[in-house]
Amino acid sequence: MVKAQETEEVFAFIANYHAMTSVFEGDRLAEQTLEAATAFLSLGIDPKRSVFWLQSAVPEVLELYWILSQYTPLGLLERAHSYKDKIAKGLSASHGLFSYPVLMAADILLYDADAVPVGKDQIQHVEIARDIAIKFNNAVGGELLRLPDCRVEERTLTVLGVDGAKMSKSYGNAIDIFVDRKTLERRIKQIVTAPIPLEEPKEWESDVVYRLCALFLDDEGKTTLQKRYEKGGEGHGRFKAYLADLIWNYFAEARIKYEALKRDPSKAVEALAAGADKARLIAKAKMAKIRSAAGVI
Amino acid sequence: MVKAQETEEVFAFIANYHAMTSVFEGDRLAEQTLEAATAFLSLGIDPKRSVFWLQSAVPEVLELYWILSQYTPLGLLERAHSYKDKIAKGLSASHGLFSYPVLMAADILLYDADAVPVGKDQIQHVEIARDIAIKFNNAVGGELLRLPDCRVEERTLTVLGVDGAKMSKSYGNAIDIFVDRKTLERRIKQIVTAPIPLEEPKEWESDVVYRLCALFLDDEGKTTLQKRYEKGGEGHGRFKAYLADLIWNYFAEARIKYEALKRDPSKAVEALAAGADKARLIAKAKMAKIRSAAGVI
Repeated sequence: MVKAQETEEVFAFIANYHAMTSVFEGDRLAEQTLEAATAFLSLGIDPKRSVFWLQSAVPEVLELYWILSQYTPLGLLERAHSYKDKIAKGLSASHGLFSYPVLMAADILLYDADAVPVGKDQIQHVEIARDIAIKFNNAVGGELLRLPDCRVEERTLTVLGVDGAKMSKSYGNAIDIFVDRKTLERRIKQIVTAPIPLEEPKEWESDVVYRLCALFLDDEGKTTLQKRYEKGGEGHGRFKAYLADLIWNYFAEARIKYEALKRDPSKAVEALAAGADKARLIAKAKMAKIRSAAGVI
Repeated sequence: MVKAQETEEVFAFIANYHAMTSVFEGDRLAEQTLEAATAFLSLGIDPKRSVFWLQSAVPEVLELYWILSQYTPLGLLERAHSYKDKIAKGLSASHGLFSYPVLMAADILLYDADAVPVGKDQIQHVEIARDIAIKFNNAVGGELLRLPDCRVEERTLTVLGVDGAKMSKSYGNAIDIFVDRKTLERRIKQIVTAPIPLEEPKEWESDVVYRLCALFLDDEGKTTLQKRYEKGGEGHGRFKAYLADLIWNYFAEARIKYEALKRDPSKAVEALAAGADKARLIAKAKMAKIRSAAGVI
């Protein structure tokens, strides 16, 4: 999204309504919401160039969510991998979790998104949004809802967490970016690796440490690292230290911005408020048409 | 509700969001929404004394709906009779239909309802609202959501439609109140009755025509009618004509109001707008507390 800002109109929001499906303590949710906004801004989302807001600041999205629910066959949600995956991971089967893709469809369709940047696990959600949009368009006639496409960056198809599963806050396996060096190193040490003696060659392709390193490396860097894996003589501790370096350096500039924003949170709050005004203007105009088509007086 | 207005604070709204779960043509929904409001006003809802509004005029209800969804186990909805009943009647299994009770819970809990006047088939929905409220209260601590009770009037436990099932617009078996005499009589002729010869005694207890007549009769009137059934010598045609009389006369005053409101729809629209202002004031104050407890910033 940070790159896309240079050439495209980017809509980026903090999905605090969605976050409620797995965060049940109000204080923690409020804190993490502001934390996420601070992180986005630190990482380079430019609130002047992009539309950047809190999901909960635009109530129209929930009205669209309700309207789209009428065009969402239950089977479409029952077949959602992400839902089944979350249940398998121990989240309880709430209505919120189940209906997550419908709210996501509203997030996408409310702003006439052309392309939705997603990880591999979210492709199905964008397909669900398309399916719902097609059903709605067919029902009311015309092309009121724009059909979105996925934009999957190969490099970030799925980012793995410390346990080797998809990295996700709700799975408790994330490596936080904005922590001090010691905490980062401790977290990286928790990455699960195959128990192979130090001197032996190691498999890099399926190795979580390698795959995380690769996110920060160009082709040359990757080849060099692959050779170190194949050669043997280095343990995972060394590769983990290298990963810590890569992460620490890659986010050096963002960390400075982050610390400034943490010292003065009002800046993030102001950016969000200005962004919400922009988003709401677009949302209101779109919803006027959708309400009229759906017969909401 | 009309009676309750005299001694209680009545909140009555036109559930046009809920109506979307079974009405998919925008024009028809818009028309029926205003029609329903006109009917409520004609039948005696006093917009000065009661809070009377359109569901869609208070967006807060959808925010509460989303928040409550997090405290709604999926199994609670899967066990809802009303949903299963609607599917059995041929409505398609949409997410909107499935989540109907959660929005209904929001309708109830947003206004701190003490008592919810419902038909027998809706008792479970009020119980679901209680269950969700208990879960929410437990999660955030305290008694933020008031636990509602049902108020089931025995006389109107379930009003039957022309096919003997629960009367419902969505089942297509309703007898409309505000139609001309000929249309009313034609509709009543469609009521399904047991094929018993004119001269023979007739069962009144399970008879749809009798049960509809009973809604308008005092004990004496009911006894007199029961005797006519038991005596034999009168066919269902006669009882149907009697039912048409009862309906026609009972709603005579309402019909006059209805025709006036139809001539000048702006009066209904103004009443709804004033009511929405009242409802929104209450909803906003309540939601501020709920948002804060749930961590929506």
